[in-house]
Amino acid sequence: MISFTNDYSECAHPLILKNLAEHCYEQNAGYGLDNHCKRASDLIRSYIGNVNVDIHYLNGGTQTNLTVLSAMLRPFDAVISTERGHINTHETGAIEGCGHKVLAMPGEDGKLTPADIEEAVQMHFSEHMVHPAAVYISDTTEIGSVYTKAELTALREVCTRHHLYLFLDGARLGAALTSTANDLTLRDLAWLTDVFTIGGTKNGALAGEAVVISNDVIQRDFRFYMKHTGAMNAKGFVLGMQFETLFQNRLYFRLAEHANNMAQLLKDACVAAGFPFLTKPVSNQIFPVVDDASLEKLQKDFNFEVWEKADEDHTIIRFVTSWATREEQVQELVQALKALKEN
Amino acid sequence: MISFTNDYSECAHPLILKNLAEHCYEQNAGYGLDNHCKRASDLIRSYIGNVNVDIHYLNGGTQTNLTVLSAMLRPFDAVISTERGHINTHETGAIEGCGHKVLAMPGEDGKLTPADIEEAVQMHFSEHMVHPAAVYISDTTEIGSVYTKAELTALREVCTRHHLYLFLDGARLGAALTSTANDLTLRDLAWLTDVFTIGGTKNGALAGEAVVISNDVIQRDFRFYMKHTGAMNAKGFVLGMQFETLFQNRLYFRLAEHANNMAQLLKDACVAAGFPFLTKPVSNQIFPVVDDASLEKLQKDFNFEVWEKADEDHTIIRFVTSWATREEQVQELVQALKALKEN
Amino acid sequence: MISFTNDYSECAHPLILKNLAEHCYEQNAGYGLDNHCKRASDLIRSYIGNVNVDIHYLNGGTQTNLTVLSAMLRPFDAVISTERGHINTHETGAIEGCGHKVLAMPGEDGKLTPADIEEAVQMHFSEHMVHPAAVYISDTTEIGSVYTKAELTALREVCTRHHLYLFLDGARLGAALTSTANDLTLRDLAWLTDVFTIGGTKNGALAGEAVVISNDVIQRDFRFYMKHTGAMNAKGFVLGMQFETLFQNRLYFRLAEHANNMAQLLKDACVAAGFPFLTKPVSNQIFPVVDDASLEKLQKDFNFEVWEKADEDHTIIRFVTSWATREEQVQELVQALKALKEN
Amino acid sequence: MISFTNDYSECAHPLILKNLAEHCYEQNAGYGLDNHCKRASDLIRSYIGNVNVDIHYLNGGTQTNLTVLSAMLRPFDAVISTERGHINTHETGAIEGCGHKVLAMPGEDGKLTPADIEEAVQMHFSEHMVHPAAVYISDTTEIGSVYTKAELTALREVCTRHHLYLFLDGARLGAALTSTANDLTLRDLAWLTDVFTIGGTKNGALAGEAVVISNDVIQRDFRFYMKHTGAMNAKGFVLGMQFETLFQNRLYFRLAEHANNMAQLLKDACVAAGFPFLTKPVSNQIFPVVDDASLEKLQKDFNFEVWEKADEDHTIIRFVTSWATREEQVQELVQALKALKEN
Repeated sequence: MISFTNDYSECAHPLILKNLAEHCYEQNAGYGLDNHCKRASDLIRSYIGNVNVDIHYLNGGTQTNLTVLSAMLRPFDAVISTERGHINTHETGAIEGCGHKVLAMPGEDGKLTPADIEEAVQMHFSEHMVHPAAVYISDTTEIGSVYTKAELTALREVCTRHHLYLFLDGARLGAALTSTANDLTLRDLAWLTDVFTIGGTKNGALAGEAVVISNDVIQRDFRFYMKHTGAMNAKGFVLGMQFETLFQNRLYFRLAEHANNMAQLLKDACVAAGFPFLTKPVSNQIFPVVDDASLEKLQKDFNFEVWEKADEDHTIIRFVTSWATREEQVQELVQALKALKEN
Repeated sequence: MISFTNDYSECAHPLILKNLAEHCYEQNAGYGLDNHCKRASDLIRSYIGNVNVDIHYLNGGTQTNLTVLSAMLRPFDAVISTERGHINTHETGAIEGCGHKVLAMPGEDGKLTPADIEEAVQMHFSEHMVHPAAVYISDTTEIGSVYTKAELTALREVCTRHHLYLFLDGARLGAALTSTANDLTLRDLAWLTDVFTIGGTKNGALAGEAVVISNDVIQRDFRFYMKHTGAMNAKGFVLGMQFETLFQNRLYFRLAEHANNMAQLLKDACVAAGFPFLTKPVSNQIFPVVDDASLEKLQKDFNFEVWEKADEDHTIIRFVTSWATREEQVQELVQALKALKEN
Repeated sequence: MISFTNDYSECAHPLILKNLAEHCYEQNAGYGLDNHCKRASDLIRSYIGNVNVDIHYLNGGTQTNLTVLSAMLRPFDAVISTERGHINTHETGAIEGCGHKVLAMPGEDGKLTPADIEEAVQMHFSEHMVHPAAVYISDTTEIGSVYTKAELTALREVCTRHHLYLFLDGARLGAALTSTANDLTLRDLAWLTDVFTIGGTKNGALAGEAVVISNDVIQRDFRFYMKHTGAMNAKGFVLGMQFETLFQNRLYFRLAEHANNMAQLLKDACVAAGFPFLTKPVSNQIFPVVDDASLEKLQKDFNFEVWEKADEDHTIIRFVTSWATREEQVQELVQALKALKEN
Repeated sequence: MISFTNDYSECAHPLILKNLAEHCYEQNAGYGLDNHCKRASDLIRSYIGNVNVDIHYLNGGTQTNLTVLSAMLRPFDAVISTERGHINTHETGAIEGCGHKVLAMPGEDGKLTPADIEEAVQMHFSEHMVHPAAVYISDTTEIGSVYTKAELTALREVCTRHHLYLFLDGARLGAALTSTANDLTLRDLAWLTDVFTIGGTKNGALAGEAVVISNDVIQRDFRFYMKHTGAMNAKGFVLGMQFETLFQNRLYFRLAEHANNMAQLLKDACVAAGFPFLTKPVSNQIFPVVDDASLEKLQKDFNFEVWEKADEDHTIIRFVTSWATREEQVQELVQALKALKEN
């Protein structure tokens, strides 16, 4: 049964495995101090230009979020997020486990707004309350929407005004940067955020998130934080080799673009079938709202996530495509969607 | 320059990379709920027999240690270790970061003794002190020694008497189980410990520690702990695929045996050169004590770790071999050792 | 300037200070293992009857909340509270500091409802999310409302069904139990909760919260938790002496009754002045909604808290009375309220 | 039975209780922002001179230590202490509970030495280890010895050289400053440490430690740390009133002097009885080494702590005197010691 459940179902892109295999017996320095990590970082820096960034490679998203926020927050400091924010809902309290409150604000279309930040700051004005010290956003967001440069700039401004770090979780940054709705570049991200991540796990790597740090306060001693949270890999070069491959010949962007294109085919089929969307479908996650009869039929032949009830007899579902999604798989679902309409 | 610095310098055994490549586009369930993890666990269980174990796959050693100990300890509980214990010295306070004191006892030959445990328990008798609730040991130890079945059984007895969990860190378990000094099996470990780990990172995998839990209290909700500490991989199947390969046709043991054999060649050369050892060299880490003139010569052509000063003009050094160490590399060092003597 | 800001402005009731002075040079056992604590607990137990409770004496509210919740929750466990809950808003992240997420639900009239709990439990169904394991309520609530026996029984039932501990913060328990809206007794609380507290700080003591534990799992090792969080006083007997006095001749209830009576006089004056209330005024905290012209006049002669804006030109304020509030102080404010109406 | 077990057996000095009673109904600002705290701090500052210090009042020793160290340390930072240090042995893992390793060094005569600090710093040189960032000492120490100005100056120098905060736990600072072995003043402490405390609990107060902060980095936001750890009292003025009394007319010093004098009488009697000491008896704690026959006799009529076995048939015991110890109580023990010798 074909799965559109997520973008981390498949192992890794063949070119990545090829790079690993070619260096099978090569001896490397441990803990990320090797030449593959160095080359990967140089490749990433070539997209960033003259912002002085530090780049580290960690395993997964929750680990990355808790390590970065540990480095940003003092014990009584809190992080502002949308209610849907991954750190607020799907990390089993990992941020609280590091001692920090997540201040969940409503957001709009899955995105945090300057007004959300202002309100969170205004609400916390004394030592009897937590102190907001960082802002967490995801691009693409948890519902597949993307930030524009204007939106991110506005967030940066309010963060600067209130002395807040801005941290962008790019677990699906490839999908964001190659979305038709996007006008941001890696260079913009380095300018506008204090820390952002470039997700590998959901875009062709076996695992791995590159953490790009432009704020020099956070740069200092970050490796201590990594080791302290169990996030420093003995074989750091395995992550380095993967990002080295991903950023050669723009593979990272080409894989994400493919995933987005596959999702657009599904989007068109949903539109044709008359299904509305939770939010405008612009990346590799789309959220059609389907009647429950259609839902039941689709579930017979395809795996995908049931997101939440829309109303009495409609349900929001999620289709996710990936670097590995083949067009013939998509066409099967397109046909199924077409068949729903015809019945 | 050939490196005998550690056993995590090389990427991964070709058979592991082959297994990954063969399943490159296969769609798998996320978070370790896939068939590769299941098969790997079945293979491991085939060595364990009728002990009811849960098996989970995590990324690295520090992460594994902090996750297991989080599951074992209440806020005021402490873990007993040797002074040399990895959790006591080389994890940047990760265990304390989870809120727990490490009670460091002297140990003998790198190994914890029943007397160490008794003393730690006797010293902590009231609510004004931490409460010892778990014992941490490593096999092989941090200095390459191994536990015998009699020793482990004695530790188990004192742990049972004092209601202490027994946790064995097997980051180098392959080297231990294939050491000439060993008489333990995986089945023994499952019987005698509450939790033990089977290290992949230092024995041919890209990364990965298998956590084998026989205590049913620790089994319950362990996945919550994993997610909470950022230790649950989205692509858990990548770890599953690797352990699947390692436990087919006894590859895990064959790789470790190779590493130990390579170390024995080095040991013989050290003996011939007249170098004594910090501790009896029985696994893939050996610690010759060399005069400083010899040290300087060796450092010209080989990478290895300088462990600590032995006296005014002697130094303890560490040679580590791995699954990937080729005999010709070893012979180069053997010749160099021989040359030292001849001069 | 007379203050109606809170109920912890004045030192302590003279009978408490008298008890301390009378035992000035008496030698007592340390850490709460003395006879005064024992007698205080026996007095409290005389109100509770045949529920087997442990009683401990801690200094303050935040300290008590973080210690009790530390004893109830594993690292990935969360506590359900109303959005207004003290642990959610006014403890500077102390609960998160112990590693736990506060799941904030809307509540009704400041009180948590069974539906709130059901919803929180339904929303958290997998290991990717925190695990709700305890419920926190306050009586009186943060806005002065009180739970009825029927309401508390309903919460108990839903807690039992979902294996949730029920913890009642009684920082203002005196005001609750002597409210005209109350039909609960200390005995009911011991039956219906796992842990509840009897607040001394806000009802005549220098400081001190009695923690009454009926759940035997939480009873075990609670003193370890106290010491671990810095909540075990060397001179525990100082707290014991105070609760000894408070529970002789029902002083605790008489002081709270007095505070409530004083608040009722203010309530009547507010009603006469035509001011509505945020919630029905039934305890020693009342929240009239005043026009901003009146607000300004009142602020000239009295101290009280401005709670929040009600609308463009109305503000919710808070008047708090205490065991120490004298009727002539209240009459001054009553006259001021009367004068507002006359103008 | 007379107790020489500790210096926190008796309630509080009558003048303290008198001050509380005289302000029984006075309305004060909450959370330590009142005039009594202000006056107490002004009185303390009058001893300190031109060092710009912030002063806060907390309840107890463990609470104070965990709050101060929370403010000094980042997650991976560690604190250096002697092995006997209170934070290392008798706080039930409170410092580890805040996430920090205690690096326990041997010390000399209960005191930390510059060489201890140097060694701890040299041993921790990479991101794989905790990072020493603070030094904890106690004056008097846990075995009653006191630091000289020369010793404290030498510690300050090594701390400055290695960027370490210096924190002096003055739970028994009164006994230290009035010891015949002392040449330090409060002013010296403010110059030489980053934070020191003035213990009230063990010198006549109901409870309370004054935290004196001269380092401006630690001064900033310290009240957030206090609230976060549950260490901010609603009725902060109760602590303020007590320190106000203690620092009027040098009461604090006079009480401590009395305790030390009482201990000297006991010391003389021990010397006459031929008992050696664990360490030179210079403050209100003395540690005679008694034969076990004498021990048994003394235990019939007096309470005191059995410290540890000295050898097969000798035991180190501890006598502690306090502000409340009356000379006739001491004389009873003196006679008992004399009687031992005569038999």
